[in-house]
Amino acid sequence: MSTGFFGDIAKIKYEGPDSTNPLAFRHYNPDEVVLGKRLEDHLRFAIAYWHTFVWPGTDPFGGNTFERPWFKDTMDAAKLKADVAFEFFQLLGAPYYCFHDADVRPEGKNFAENTKNLNEIVDYFAKKQEETGVKLLWGTANLFSHRRYMSGAATNPDPDVFAFAAATVKTCIDATQKLGGENYVLWGGREGYETLLNTDLKKELDQMGRFLNLVVEYKHKIGFKGTILIEPKPQEPSKHQYDYDVATVYGFLKNYGLEKEVKVNIEQGHAILAGHTFEHELALANALGIFGSIDMNRNDYQSGWDTDQFPNNVPEMALAYYQVLAGGGFTTGGTNFDAKLRRQSLDPEDLLIGHIGGMDCCARGLKAAAKMIEDKALSGPLADRYAGWSKAENQAVLRGEESLDAIAARVEANDINPLPKSGKQEHLENVVNRYV
Amino acid sequence: MSTGFFGDIAKIKYEGPDSTNPLAFRHYNPDEVVLGKRLEDHLRFAIAYWHTFVWPGTDPFGGNTFERPWFKDTMDAAKLKADVAFEFFQLLGAPYYCFHDADVRPEGKNFAENTKNLNEIVDYFAKKQEETGVKLLWGTANLFSHRRYMSGAATNPDPDVFAFAAATVKTCIDATQKLGGENYVLWGGREGYETLLNTDLKKELDQMGRFLNLVVEYKHKIGFKGTILIEPKPQEPSKHQYDYDVATVYGFLKNYGLEKEVKVNIEQGHAILAGHTFEHELALANALGIFGSIDMNRNDYQSGWDTDQFPNNVPEMALAYYQVLAGGGFTTGGTNFDAKLRRQSLDPEDLLIGHIGGMDCCARGLKAAAKMIEDKALSGPLADRYAGWSKAENQAVLRGEESLDAIAARVEANDINPLPKSGKQEHLENVVNRYV
Amino acid sequence: MSTGFFGDIAKIKYEGPDSTNPLAFRHYNPDEVVLGKRLEDHLRFAIAYWHTFVWPGTDPFGGNTFERPWFKDTMDAAKLKADVAFEFFQLLGAPYYCFHDADVRPEGKNFAENTKNLNEIVDYFAKKQEETGVKLLWGTANLFSHRRYMSGAATNPDPDVFAFAAATVKTCIDATQKLGGENYVLWGGREGYETLLNTDLKKELDQMGRFLNLVVEYKHKIGFKGTILIEPKPQEPSKHQYDYDVATVYGFLKNYGLEKEVKVNIEQGHAILAGHTFEHELALANALGIFGSIDMNRNDYQSGWDTDQFPNNVPEMALAYYQVLAGGGFTTGGTNFDAKLRRQSLDPEDLLIGHIGGMDCCARGLKAAAKMIEDKALSGPLADRYAGWSKAENQAVLRGEESLDAIAARVEANDINPLPKSGKQEHLENVVNRYV
Amino acid sequence: MSTGFFGDIAKIKYEGPDSTNPLAFRHYNPDEVVLGKRLEDHLRFAIAYWHTFVWPGTDPFGGNTFERPWFKDTMDAAKLKADVAFEFFQLLGAPYYCFHDADVRPEGKNFAENTKNLNEIVDYFAKKQEETGVKLLWGTANLFSHRRYMSGAATNPDPDVFAFAAATVKTCIDATQKLGGENYVLWGGREGYETLLNTDLKKELDQMGRFLNLVVEYKHKIGFKGTILIEPKPQEPSKHQYDYDVATVYGFLKNYGLEKEVKVNIEQGHAILAGHTFEHELALANALGIFGSIDMNRNDYQSGWDTDQFPNNVPEMALAYYQVLAGGGFTTGGTNFDAKLRRQSLDPEDLLIGHIGGMDCCARGLKAAAKMIEDKALSGPLADRYAGWSKAENQAVLRGEESLDAIAARVEANDINPLPKSGKQEHLENVVNRYV
Repeated sequence: MSTGFFGDIAKIKYEGPDSTNPLAFRHYNPDEVVLGKRLEDHLRFAIAYWHTFVWPGTDPFGGNTFERPWFKDTMDAAKLKADVAFEFFQLLGAPYYCFHDADVRPEGKNFAENTKNLNEIVDYFAKKQEETGVKLLWGTANLFSHRRYMSGAATNPDPDVFAFAAATVKTCIDATQKLGGENYVLWGGREGYETLLNTDLKKELDQMGRFLNLVVEYKHKIGFKGTILIEPKPQEPSKHQYDYDVATVYGFLKNYGLEKEVKVNIEQGHAILAGHTFEHELALANALGIFGSIDMNRNDYQSGWDTDQFPNNVPEMALAYYQVLAGGGFTTGGTNFDAKLRRQSLDPEDLLIGHIGGMDCCARGLKAAAKMIEDKALSGPLADRYAGWSKAENQAVLRGEESLDAIAARVEANDINPLPKSGKQEHLENVVNRYV
Repeated sequence: MSTGFFGDIAKIKYEGPDSTNPLAFRHYNPDEVVLGKRLEDHLRFAIAYWHTFVWPGTDPFGGNTFERPWFKDTMDAAKLKADVAFEFFQLLGAPYYCFHDADVRPEGKNFAENTKNLNEIVDYFAKKQEETGVKLLWGTANLFSHRRYMSGAATNPDPDVFAFAAATVKTCIDATQKLGGENYVLWGGREGYETLLNTDLKKELDQMGRFLNLVVEYKHKIGFKGTILIEPKPQEPSKHQYDYDVATVYGFLKNYGLEKEVKVNIEQGHAILAGHTFEHELALANALGIFGSIDMNRNDYQSGWDTDQFPNNVPEMALAYYQVLAGGGFTTGGTNFDAKLRRQSLDPEDLLIGHIGGMDCCARGLKAAAKMIEDKALSGPLADRYAGWSKAENQAVLRGEESLDAIAARVEANDINPLPKSGKQEHLENVVNRYV
Repeated sequence: MSTGFFGDIAKIKYEGPDSTNPLAFRHYNPDEVVLGKRLEDHLRFAIAYWHTFVWPGTDPFGGNTFERPWFKDTMDAAKLKADVAFEFFQLLGAPYYCFHDADVRPEGKNFAENTKNLNEIVDYFAKKQEETGVKLLWGTANLFSHRRYMSGAATNPDPDVFAFAAATVKTCIDATQKLGGENYVLWGGREGYETLLNTDLKKELDQMGRFLNLVVEYKHKIGFKGTILIEPKPQEPSKHQYDYDVATVYGFLKNYGLEKEVKVNIEQGHAILAGHTFEHELALANALGIFGSIDMNRNDYQSGWDTDQFPNNVPEMALAYYQVLAGGGFTTGGTNFDAKLRRQSLDPEDLLIGHIGGMDCCARGLKAAAKMIEDKALSGPLADRYAGWSKAENQAVLRGEESLDAIAARVEANDINPLPKSGKQEHLENVVNRYV
Repeated sequence: MSTGFFGDIAKIKYEGPDSTNPLAFRHYNPDEVVLGKRLEDHLRFAIAYWHTFVWPGTDPFGGNTFERPWFKDTMDAAKLKADVAFEFFQLLGAPYYCFHDADVRPEGKNFAENTKNLNEIVDYFAKKQEETGVKLLWGTANLFSHRRYMSGAATNPDPDVFAFAAATVKTCIDATQKLGGENYVLWGGREGYETLLNTDLKKELDQMGRFLNLVVEYKHKIGFKGTILIEPKPQEPSKHQYDYDVATVYGFLKNYGLEKEVKVNIEQGHAILAGHTFEHELALANALGIFGSIDMNRNDYQSGWDTDQFPNNVPEMALAYYQVLAGGGFTTGGTNFDAKLRRQSLDPEDLLIGHIGGMDCCARGLKAAAKMIEDKALSGPLADRYAGWSKAENQAVLRGEESLDAIAARVEANDINPLPKSGKQEHLENVVNRYV
């Protein structure tokens, strides 16, 4: 039975590139086969519960603009919200969703009540999942909104907050496992600092290392098969966050012995805020062997905060999906829309339209990337560029079989004096433009 | 015998805070004892050869503004430059200097000629050092200016460039050892990329890892006692550089097994370009055990490129030296001025004035930091803030003796529900302002 | 009768630089005479109602951290808030305060109720002002928080919103006049756009020009003697705001014939977000004849949003007050603390401590600036640098008495071939460091 | 007779979207008619002499990478360069070019020699133009590279530098007129400051105002029919430049009475550096009536300096050309490629490939924009959104026929209480994606 929230809008269908129907897909045909796989199975779209059903349109200078019937902190409202959410997943044909505990249950007065509320809604979700076939891409705990976390969760100076956070994560992993979630995510919005003046960096990093080890140990204890993911972000809400970017997370994982256990969930907007392109973060995660999943959105290039807009620039997205595909594509991960409407987009249909546009652009981007891979449009020239390294003597250098002084002697003896060769960047950019 | 370049300017003296003599120190008294050590031994000032004697005042939109008599690419000019440089070190009372090979010798037509030229000037320097008592803080190879390095040195797609670079580093480590240098630095301005379209990130990182291992192996082979330092910088000249920041370098070192062998040389301006404060990078290097040395300067907060200005904001510098001192102070490292005059500052005395101002500000900053340490102005409140973690049960958590589910059970059983406590940031900022 | 909110804290006193009492001034002695005027009369401190008494510690990722007894939307709570506010002004010895209508009155269900509520609280304030001697520096209307303004106030596509906003400003000017306010401020946080796709820039600028003319006309009609001020800010909440910076506001004022009627209220943090230094904006406003007042705070240099921290960097603040004093000092304007506590600073005394630190730094900065002015430390060298322009022939050029071709002929005839002279930036930076 | 520099490459032809020939156009067909005009006449492409023929591949950390046979400062080399340049214009079918005096002539020892050299090359160009049909879009004077301009040209503290600059501009306007140039551009890279400590802002702005008036007066005196254009840029080389952005230039023009005489040449990269989108600057120039021409390129979003890359993001370019067309298209202006190869792109054909890619993307962008205009894809919804303003009573408000208090009375009497309406940003973004 429909909640009626979306009026008489029917399931969104693929109508092809010439459609001008704002409530149809123009590029996302879930059954289209690309590189031997259906688009739906490539992209693995997920809807973010928080932005789509929880955020009320506030910003630092303004209050709610959205008025949803479920904006109350009761269990009934939570269930109405779930009803609308699963309707929405079905209207869009989204195979997955993602949530924080605080998105889905009323806030309790203590840990026990939070747990009870969460479990009640998890049961409700389980039934909904069964009815609809929609699956959970990942679950996570909100360890940043409540005032108890204002100075950190795992990194709090108060060990009781660490304990409260750890207990909460335990319940959220349980919930994720119960719902068949394919990953569990940790985003550390308060794991960082406002000022070094009151911060013991070493102690906090060690706390965070321990916390993550607790999570990994528990995962194995209960036999959770999903992937544990960290989501890097450089700052906001904190001035500085410890999971700054992919490179930083990698060093952290290595330091606490977790680089085989934990991967990264990379968000376009967070990459931008950290001074990187999205494709950089993806390529680096691939190079380091820790790529897991993506939060797809877009950050405004002129704004210095997390704008979480729906993605819409296909050429940029093609470069991102190129890295995803070049690394072998998603395994347990997927494309989660960590994207919110602009706060002026008040209407229920705006929720659909935002996601339709995003899904279409992802599909265009991925298809362009797949074609580049098929054509070896970039990988061919790349192999040529580095071809010299495949010579035996150069492989030997890489294997550590020649010392610095031996190399120096060889350079002098052979008067090695290499001439530069064109990097052909503009040519390659033009090549990409054939595909997008 | 004087070159006459600085006219009749005599050795710069300490005249105390009330002096208005632009050619005197107001705060840097080398013999002043702070925390049991002379200021000179705390600060370990070094002069950067490149900015002070080589840079001609160009910028991307303009040509030379400086006209120095040694601006010719000959051995005689190189020796005149050395004469002026050592005069300058003595006028300032700077105990150390730093250089790249390309700063000090004429460019040869190939590796052999470069080596010959370098060795000739190294002999000249050795004599100068003996005459003046000035020492070498660190040497380094310029692997970024010559066109052969345009696509990287260690990370070049052409293995011959890797070899040329490796050979060059070998000669520069030799030179550094011969001159008694206390460190050897690698800054990878071309170790990065302009575009991912023509870049194999994994291959380049592996090349760079091998290169650094070659350096470390060679260091041990020849018994060089100095510290090997990497200097992080996020970008410029390259769009993206692999040694992005301290956290990134740490992950890289861990990945290639070098975290016990290599430390970091942290530059204020590079920290700023990477989106960090200087004190953040210093604190993090301390926390990770890889702090080595600093390049002191200041980046303009409104400019998006490396401005390498002389430092002049004492409150900020006090926070930086606070981290240096909190980590135990310099061992082989020091305070190198990687700072250049504005290109409109044409006069020889401007060179002195820039350094005098910088040295005075460093002295003020370090003295303020030392006083804060003596007073436990920050460390006292810090210890209080984290005091809860010293309880046995919380230490047990950190040691990994309690599992996630056990913590959850404890939180539920004891209804742990912590209340937030004031972080007192403004109070601590006011405390710092008592010292600066 | 005290509300008891601040416990037994007594009026903050000046105790001199050696005091370590966190609840005392170390540099701000209101009666100290500088350049012939009392410090209190120079600085004209004002407390911002919104940050100090209204903001609950939220951020985009977290809810309230502050719990104040007056956090209810009733008239009684508004009066309790006012009681605490005026106690606070007196504890600090702040001569002024500033407010938005929405800070001080409960939100009504329509315009009439808003007006009624505002008028009731204005009467209450009037009495408080009389009792305490505290004065109103400026009033303003909040035209950005309520959802009706989500697409702009003056620049809204819906003329009814323009009308509602205009009516609201009318009541706020009335309130300001009744309370003897010395200025009236307009900050256009929603006067801008999220996307050009739905924006008619020209139409919106014309609407905004008309709106401001309405305000100026009304000011004259009712005989309000205060200054009308625009507060520039480049963005946030909007992606782009029309009052981007001082230069932009000047062009806008010229375009709508208002450059003699309206001045600017310049905020440190907004200058930083616009890519300028604070002193730049102040110097430019002086040069253009539109300097009015300042919102003193500090923006974090590593954060891309408006952090509104308490100022604490004295060298930077000295350069800002140097521009204020160089332009003749404040007339109707003053130093309003548009600064908020960090959300972890929960305690009532943190409110005092934040302001004490800010006021002390302002006092240090202004005193340093005053001394530089007395000594002609900067103005002397400045006059020398431009001295060539005072020659008669060059004055003639500036008066337009020589044409381009005549100048060319003169250059050729006299073979004018000027040599550059040192700009002496480092020397001047060192000079400034003698004062701070 | 060919110089042979481009080997046997023949004139670049349009081969249609399916071509994979790197030396063919895929989208730019000069004769294609769009909105009733040929593409060539819409786009009015011009080649920038400086980047394409003068820049040697240096950056702040590296020397020349390009080795061109004309890299000598002689008249013969200048003529060879001109020969290659005009070959290049013809190969590409570019109808226009642009130059600075310093790009095209050897540097003389004084003003007279510069003038003589310039005139000789102008005669050479005139003949070339006649032979090839290539025209001059604009000329300009380089008032920033020579050390005499290090502290400004018009804004120099030394009036002799002002005179030298004025004389130089006179000769460049003469040259532009002689060559039939359609515009004359002023870019003030040194019209700004490095530090306010040595800068008299007001005096410098007045100098710059006088300078520009001299130019305008001379234009009229000699009957030059082209447009005078200012090119805004916020910074680099200077820390702060006076022609910061379009809004700032508008205020400057109004202040010196020049808003009817001078228009703007807007560069994508400069817009980005100033914190704006390119389309913002274009839309604003249209709204203010000062749009003139564009410098097409692209700035790297992760780099804080002027990267001057070839444009390649068609969706962004479509939004830019949408503004150009919405304002009526170019009159005397055009699309100048102020774009340079990456310094690793060494080969002559890279020069062609960079421009071919840029021209193709411009053509795609403009065609998409034209289609949106034909379909009223954006203008239709825009008109609807503001429709309320066309009512008589609201027009009266805009004409100033209703006072603030009358509006307030009306709001109260009619209980005007407007409800917000969806801004539909995501919908409009999806609409744009139908066209790109």
